Amino acid sequence: MKTDIEIAQSIELKPITEIVEQVGIGFDDIELYGKYKAKLSFEKINALKDQEPGKLILVTAINPTPAGEGKSTMSIGLADALNKIGKKTMIALREPSLGPVMGIKGGAAGGGYAQVLPMEDINLHFTGDMHAITTANNALSALLDNHLQQGNEFGIDQRRVIWKRVVDLNDRALRQVIVGLGSPLNGVPREDGFDITVASEIMAILCLATDLADLKERLASIVVAYTHDRKPVYVRDLKVEGALTLILKDALKPNLVQTIYGTPALVHGGPFANIAHGCNSVLATTTALRLADYTVTEAGFGADLGAEKFLNIKTPNLPKAPDAVVIVATLRALKMHGGVAKTDLSEENLDAIRAGFANLERHVANIRKFGVPVVVAINEFVADTAAEVALLKELCAGIDVPVELASVWADGAAGGVALAETVVSVVEQGQANYTRLYSDSDSLEEKVTKIVTEIYGGRGVVFGPKAKTQLKQFADLGWDKMPVCMAKTQYSFSDNPVDLGAPEGFEITVREFVPKTGAGFIVALTGDVMTMPGLPKEPAALNMDVREDGTAVGLF
Amino acid sequence: MKTDIEIAQSIELKPITEIVEQVGIGFDDIELYGKYKAKLSFEKINALKDQEPGKLILVTAINPTPAGEGKSTMSIGLADALNKIGKKTMIALREPSLGPVMGIKGGAAGGGYAQVLPMEDINLHFTGDMHAITTANNALSALLDNHLQQGNEFGIDQRRVIWKRVVDLNDRALRQVIVGLGSPLNGVPREDGFDITVASEIMAILCLATDLADLKERLASIVVAYTHDRKPVYVRDLKVEGALTLILKDALKPNLVQTIYGTPALVHGGPFANIAHGCNSVLATTTALRLADYTVTEAGFGADLGAEKFLNIKTPNLPKAPDAVVIVATLRALKMHGGVAKTDLSEENLDAIRAGFANLERHVANIRKFGVPVVVAINEFVADTAAEVALLKELCAGIDVPVELASVWADGAAGGVALAETVVSVVEQGQANYTRLYSDSDSLEEKVTKIVTEIYGGRGVVFGPKAKTQLKQFADLGWDKMPVCMAKTQYSFSDNPVDLGAPEGFEITVREFVPKTGAGFIVALTGDVMTMPGLPKEPAALNMDVREDGTAVGLF
Repeated sequence: MKTDIEIAQSIELKPITEIVEQVGIGFDDIELYGKYKAKLSFEKINALKDQEPGKLILVTAINPTPAGEGKSTMSIGLADALNKIGKKTMIALREPSLGPVMGIKGGAAGGGYAQVLPMEDINLHFTGDMHAITTANNALSALLDNHLQQGNEFGIDQRRVIWKRVVDLNDRALRQVIVGLGSPLNGVPREDGFDITVASEIMAILCLATDLADLKERLASIVVAYTHDRKPVYVRDLKVEGALTLILKDALKPNLVQTIYGTPALVHGGPFANIAHGCNSVLATTTALRLADYTVTEAGFGADLGAEKFLNIKTPNLPKAPDAVVIVATLRALKMHGGVAKTDLSEENLDAIRAGFANLERHVANIRKFGVPVVVAINEFVADTAAEVALLKELCAGIDVPVELASVWADGAAGGVALAETVVSVVEQGQANYTRLYSDSDSLEEKVTKIVTEIYGGRGVVFGPKAKTQLKQFADLGWDKMPVCMAKTQYSFSDNPVDLGAPEGFEITVREFVPKTGAGFIVALTGDVMTMPGLPKEPAALNMDVREDGTAVGLF
Repeated sequence: MKTDIEIAQSIELKPITEIVEQVGIGFDDIELYGKYKAKLSFEKINALKDQEPGKLILVTAINPTPAGEGKSTMSIGLADALNKIGKKTMIALREPSLGPVMGIKGGAAGGGYAQVLPMEDINLHFTGDMHAITTANNALSALLDNHLQQGNEFGIDQRRVIWKRVVDLNDRALRQVIVGLGSPLNGVPREDGFDITVASEIMAILCLATDLADLKERLASIVVAYTHDRKPVYVRDLKVEGALTLILKDALKPNLVQTIYGTPALVHGGPFANIAHGCNSVLATTTALRLADYTVTEAGFGADLGAEKFLNIKTPNLPKAPDAVVIVATLRALKMHGGVAKTDLSEENLDAIRAGFANLERHVANIRKFGVPVVVAINEFVADTAAEVALLKELCAGIDVPVELASVWADGAAGGVALAETVVSVVEQGQANYTRLYSDSDSLEEKVTKIVTEIYGGRGVVFGPKAKTQLKQFADLGWDKMPVCMAKTQYSFSDNPVDLGAPEGFEITVREFVPKTGAGFIVALTGDVMTMPGLPKEPAALNMDVREDGTAVGLF
């Protein structure tokens, strides 16, 4: 069996200029990065402003196994299949971080015969967006520490600097550091830490900004620290939002690439799905909507996190809400939710599927609360049995949700045709009638409570002592009018990762709130959230190499 | 008077495809980065292997004022002028670091009417080379700390890790840090520090590597730490040279841009000129030599550092040695060497020029020791008087060195025609007969001593206690066969920055040696060397912004 990179390297790519022609993008509308990657110009994006948006399909998933349910693969395969049945379709996906690429084997540009290409470039430096975000983030840190060093005009309390540095690597040794040591010439000593770049608030900002002016306004609104009398200090106080916008001006332009089947894809931005909203950029999704008849996009983690944030945080920034949501499920994960141990997931187990279906059922009901119709996609694995598939279809029929088996990983576009046809038929019924779960004027407490009770299925919320104090502080600062971004485990509806299926009666504990006033949301922390991964004992980097002709070895 | 960026933005650029056509590079030989930047493919570089190299002109300078003597500006203007008088000419220059761009006003892509364009891009992310080097450097750090964390198979002494992290920013707070704090899950606590990216050994390696295989071999040869029994640990022990090469594979390809006058320019690599060799990449210079009849290149700092290293370290990796060396001098700097205070440099002072000429004279004599003919270029400033220029010309005649006044900053190509004609006439006499100052088999002690006595004009070398111990250690390890890379102040021939003119009788103290076994040289530290600059009280970043159309404001 071929690996992802072997499949990717066996494909003869078309020049990206040819790919984008089919959606009306000309040579002068793009900036090439080699022959197969390009950035779309602001001129073209602006010229599309009055274009009627096409149909929007959001791909999400049940609570996944640690290997993931294959959302990206399914998104790519579905888009290829939509094109195959004659719908002019584009994809809008997140771009991968280099950290996990060096760490753990596992593609971030789809898999099998449902990949975006050139996967080598996309997984390495791509068009430099991650590097621009890293640079902007760390330039802000350097300018902030320079403010402390050069007289500290704003009276910043160096113990209350909340802006952290970043690297786009898995580097546990940088999680907690002390900077400014050695000499008065080396700055003010203080505790600091590094997150991975995709956890930077600047990544979330880049993915929510609608244009350069909005980007700059959001950057200016970042809180970086508090003064000795506990007042927030913003980027606009430091007067560096112009410089940060300058560093990010090209990164804001969406990236154009292609799938194995020549479907044009916008791969742009990739914020975390816990401390951020987990979706590709608003600009990419908006642009795809205005260029294509169908746009397929995805949201990170399971639907309780990714889709909830897509619908409550991202959608208000889009020209339209989704016309349909595809929930990806694997029989393996359903069996896991039904109580089967990881080692036994390859064996047929109808009872476990019946039990585990509760997880899928709750996700379906949740999406329907937003007024958007749902289609279930079963991501086929070799171990799936006919009886298991038949049972799942029967269970889906019981809750009146369309379901299709899709084999896009193995069969590419052809493996997604049935799913594509079902999606089109649901979309063409025009039942979507989007409604948001909460309104901006709800208090933070109300917002969190609605998410926990109506989406997670929990009994209620416990606010820890720090969170309680913050509820009042944030209301005083006017920050409570922003949406809430839940930081929770992706493996369970509850805040306990081993609490599988469809748990009930639980409470969610919110330990702390974190203001992301530039991104425009308030993060609610439940449990520990890892913002800097570590490397495994045998990092993927050990198997990487380059051939004499410059092609990559060992990227999955 | 227009600023550099105003001049740059007033120029209508030609597509880079058109620019490179004139030196025989076709569309399929390059990878575009937008319309005005490109990387040259390895295929094209390889196809040029048997091409006869053209003439090589090295631009260097006297010991400069803090503002610099204008070497880059002169290199660009000279190349434009050579093209103007009918010589097919290319430029090979260093690419700038973002750190100083955010910190201190001052262009790094030439100035006035002698600039490489698009200057905005070149000064910001360009084609991502700096980011690739930052990433490779820090990936190595993460993999090294992961080795410590995961059992430390090689017995690395965490107090003797010499590999530092980098950021491409001026960030003094990162000079000295402690990493790995907070929990056993956060790695092994140890002292660490960050350099600016251009000080990374990987930058020096990229600039000396002749192809991908050589790059990988050099990366494998980096020493990162010592074991508890003081044995060096190399990158090849960690088995990550393949991954690092993969991260750097595109960064190794030279970048093509253009000057204001449409001269094709290779702008690639930019190592420090103190702890590294201060020259653009071997691949860029070699490629230019094989494509053009004339190649103009430069070396960092004054000729005692930059040209010495170009001739002793870089030249052995090139297909040929320089045919002529241009030494840039300003009347201002000569007056400074003649004892005039900084505030009085704009006033005519013939005596000071006569006294300060000793500095230029020693540089001319030094270059001649390498068997290469010299031309002096006077970089014109508005305050220069006719009498001063006449005097300098007379003094140059006295030591039989051709000299020309050049006004490329104000007048562009036309301002460099006289210089270009003189350079061509010197080159066409064919007097160059390159000889290296020392041979690889000389001991480190001998190499340093030759540089100090024959180039700096010093009496001898004092090796401090640590350096003395290292002389023996490095000889035992076989490291003494590498060239020496002097880390010394650029402002004086001696190791005392205020010791101007042509000091005599001084001794140079070598405090410590630093092995750069991947780059293939041993750094000799004299005095303090700053490898991480700080930001000034009013950083240039405060004046930066982006217009609605995406163009930059405040980049010089």
